[in-house]
Amino acid sequence: MGRERTIAAVATPAGTGALAIIRISGDEAFEKVSKCLDPAEKFHKAEPKKISLFKFKRKDTGEMIDEVTVIKYRGPSSYTGEDMVEIFCHGGPYIINSIIKELIYNGIDGARKGEFTRRAFINGKMDLTRAEAVKSVIESKTELENKIAVRALSGEYKKKIEKWREKIVEALVQIETEIEFEEDQDIELENKEKRDLLELVRVIGEDLKRREKIKEIEGGLRVVIAGPANAGKSTLFNKIVGYERVLTHHEPGTTRDWVSEKIYIDGNELILIDSAGIRKTENPVEMEGIKKSNEEIEKAGLVIWVSAADERIYEEEKEWIEVLKNRNTIFLLNKVDKKINGEKEKFFKREKINPELVSLKNELNLTDIFNQISNRVRNLNESIEIPDMIGNMRQEKIAEEMMEQIKNAINNWERVEIAAHYLNTALESVEEILGKRDNEEVLNRIFESFCIGK
Amino acid sequence: MGRERTIAAVATPAGTGALAIIRISGDEAFEKVSKCLDPAEKFHKAEPKKISLFKFKRKDTGEMIDEVTVIKYRGPSSYTGEDMVEIFCHGGPYIINSIIKELIYNGIDGARKGEFTRRAFINGKMDLTRAEAVKSVIESKTELENKIAVRALSGEYKKKIEKWREKIVEALVQIETEIEFEEDQDIELENKEKRDLLELVRVIGEDLKRREKIKEIEGGLRVVIAGPANAGKSTLFNKIVGYERVLTHHEPGTTRDWVSEKIYIDGNELILIDSAGIRKTENPVEMEGIKKSNEEIEKAGLVIWVSAADERIYEEEKEWIEVLKNRNTIFLLNKVDKKINGEKEKFFKREKINPELVSLKNELNLTDIFNQISNRVRNLNESIEIPDMIGNMRQEKIAEEMMEQIKNAINNWERVEIAAHYLNTALESVEEILGKRDNEEVLNRIFESFCIGK
Repeated sequence: MGRERTIAAVATPAGTGALAIIRISGDEAFEKVSKCLDPAEKFHKAEPKKISLFKFKRKDTGEMIDEVTVIKYRGPSSYTGEDMVEIFCHGGPYIINSIIKELIYNGIDGARKGEFTRRAFINGKMDLTRAEAVKSVIESKTELENKIAVRALSGEYKKKIEKWREKIVEALVQIETEIEFEEDQDIELENKEKRDLLELVRVIGEDLKRREKIKEIEGGLRVVIAGPANAGKSTLFNKIVGYERVLTHHEPGTTRDWVSEKIYIDGNELILIDSAGIRKTENPVEMEGIKKSNEEIEKAGLVIWVSAADERIYEEEKEWIEVLKNRNTIFLLNKVDKKINGEKEKFFKREKINPELVSLKNELNLTDIFNQISNRVRNLNESIEIPDMIGNMRQEKIAEEMMEQIKNAINNWERVEIAAHYLNTALESVEEILGKRDNEEVLNRIFESFCIGK
Repeated sequence: MGRERTIAAVATPAGTGALAIIRISGDEAFEKVSKCLDPAEKFHKAEPKKISLFKFKRKDTGEMIDEVTVIKYRGPSSYTGEDMVEIFCHGGPYIINSIIKELIYNGIDGARKGEFTRRAFINGKMDLTRAEAVKSVIESKTELENKIAVRALSGEYKKKIEKWREKIVEALVQIETEIEFEEDQDIELENKEKRDLLELVRVIGEDLKRREKIKEIEGGLRVVIAGPANAGKSTLFNKIVGYERVLTHHEPGTTRDWVSEKIYIDGNELILIDSAGIRKTENPVEMEGIKKSNEEIEKAGLVIWVSAADERIYEEEKEWIEVLKNRNTIFLLNKVDKKINGEKEKFFKREKINPELVSLKNELNLTDIFNQISNRVRNLNESIEIPDMIGNMRQEKIAEEMMEQIKNAINNWERVEIAAHYLNTALESVEEILGKRDNEEVLNRIFESFCIGK
């Protein structure tokens, strides 16, 4: 502190709203803001963290720009750790600009991107995992993203990483003692440290696997509608998306390519994919479509198999159903308003599958389908385990390196100097995750991706 | 209170920012919000108007959606006059939506447009002129609009209108006493009331005139660049606007039609207009352009006359300069890098005009021009008187009616019953301005034009 400029920025989104927030942080925050407030005396005497009403004035004319409410925070008990002021003004662009202008006119600087959070980090109010989480929280678009971000924000990642940092330090201390006193060590103790490190490798490995799972559904869980041609797949797609996007037609094979749509169900992001019908064909364009369908089914998190009740069952369909019954699949028997094909019914029974009986055309049991999809997606999302300590790409990359370093240390356990070298490097990595090592470039990269006012 | 729903809305603009504000108002605000906050106990015990940190949780899973800060306001000491809560969360759309969803899930309703301010009005926290001012403050785009809106917001209009309401009531009391006791009255007293009413008519008339002035520059003060063809008008226009918008060409008469651009100088909204050159022509298209130029000059709040130093002075220019020297005009002598035409120099001297000597091409003295424009606009704006009590169209319309009613009352002063009738109608009008008379339709119209969250 002390050497820092006093900074100001709007913290709320651009545009017109009822209210806006302007934040000021720095040693001179109280003094400089007080010059714009009427009565200034009331501001000076105001109890920190308590909101009160003021006139925000122009310095030159003394005219009021707006009636505002103001909270002051006495550092270190503030977001940045410095003295801070929050001004709540009416949310009009002219007012916001005029207030910022007056603040600048009074010697306060415009804040750079992420400068408030950067100061919070530098002043020890939060480690780097929590600072990064601020951005992730704001940018989260789904329940899962929100969960991960909020967990990091609340400091859980930090706590776990600190705990593992301790284990590395303990192992290092033990190894370095060994270097000094050579072979005087208790074998029990040695094994405890080694066991801890092996456990750490396991935990990191697990976390990296969880990250892979999460990355798979980043941008949306893939829900693929599949089945024989003309069974009603595109009709279902349209019903789910809620409007007519695909040409639904009675000629088999109408949907040659797959179409997709991003949808949200209960706060979960899905990519709904309508695939080409599974059927034998000589037409090269259709064959291409079917190949693509197969690929989509392979990548799907959830498959909705649509079959027409009144059509006979072909070999290709049987093969697919046998594969899909062991995967996450909803089976629909559509067109149940027509006569159900006996052979198809028998096949489902033999395979012990109870398909949902629906008529998409008549919207029969449509709500059941929606509920099923919603349940499956919820279950899928709930089954996804959130990593214990790795929240983003930067942390993942460092964790991968760290795991290798610890493995190397374990493999060289008897060659104490080498083990010590690897453990020291691992320690550097873990401290890099927390941001304990100064690295201007990394900090710049992180905070410049923030919005202004955060 | 009591019968009202508890309502919630985002008060900050849509979009992504560092922070957002969610407001809740109503009898059950504390109880219902507390169900989402962890620790709830801390919220119950929290001192009103003091900000503190909480976890905002999902009701069903208990999982945290965000770390938020919260202020509670105990009615009537709040914006709406009811119990209120303000939640400050991270400014991401997913978070905002999730929090609103949880509040609704807990039995809070989504607020309608302007519902918070409507409640403030209904609960007597503000009269209608101040409620309207909330919207004007948010929507103000210039210093002048801001000044007017802020004056109304601070209650100055209300105070003045209340004072005049008193005068009408006093006159009414006097007249009605006269009706009862007939002719027993003191002539002195009668004249005082009448004088007050005459003064009120004068004040309203003045205010209506000020409104006219303001309406003239609503949407921007008109600044017209005029002068002979090829003197550098379009070059100046471009320099002011800051980029090339008009084709600048050496053939006289290039700018056939006028072009305009909305610009802001020191928070003042201007419409800068580039007009066709003033010169004799037989070409009907050019004649049309010159006619339009003349009209624009007539309507201008400020004229910038651009003349080329090296060209001789024609009769048309002399005529214009003689007219314009008595109006708000800046005279420029452009191209002073060339030889100044003696006749033109002599004419300016004779007319006692000191033109600014500039070279637009070489950007000589360009800053002087900008400063001059800025000064003139500031002076013009400062010379505009702000109405004492009429802030918008609705108020203006009622004030016009009211003025007529008072005039009628004065003209019928001796016919006491008629005068009383007119004064009663005037009283209704003044109370309509303040919103003292319930008129659901008017209130709906006013508050439905608000944004949600205000």
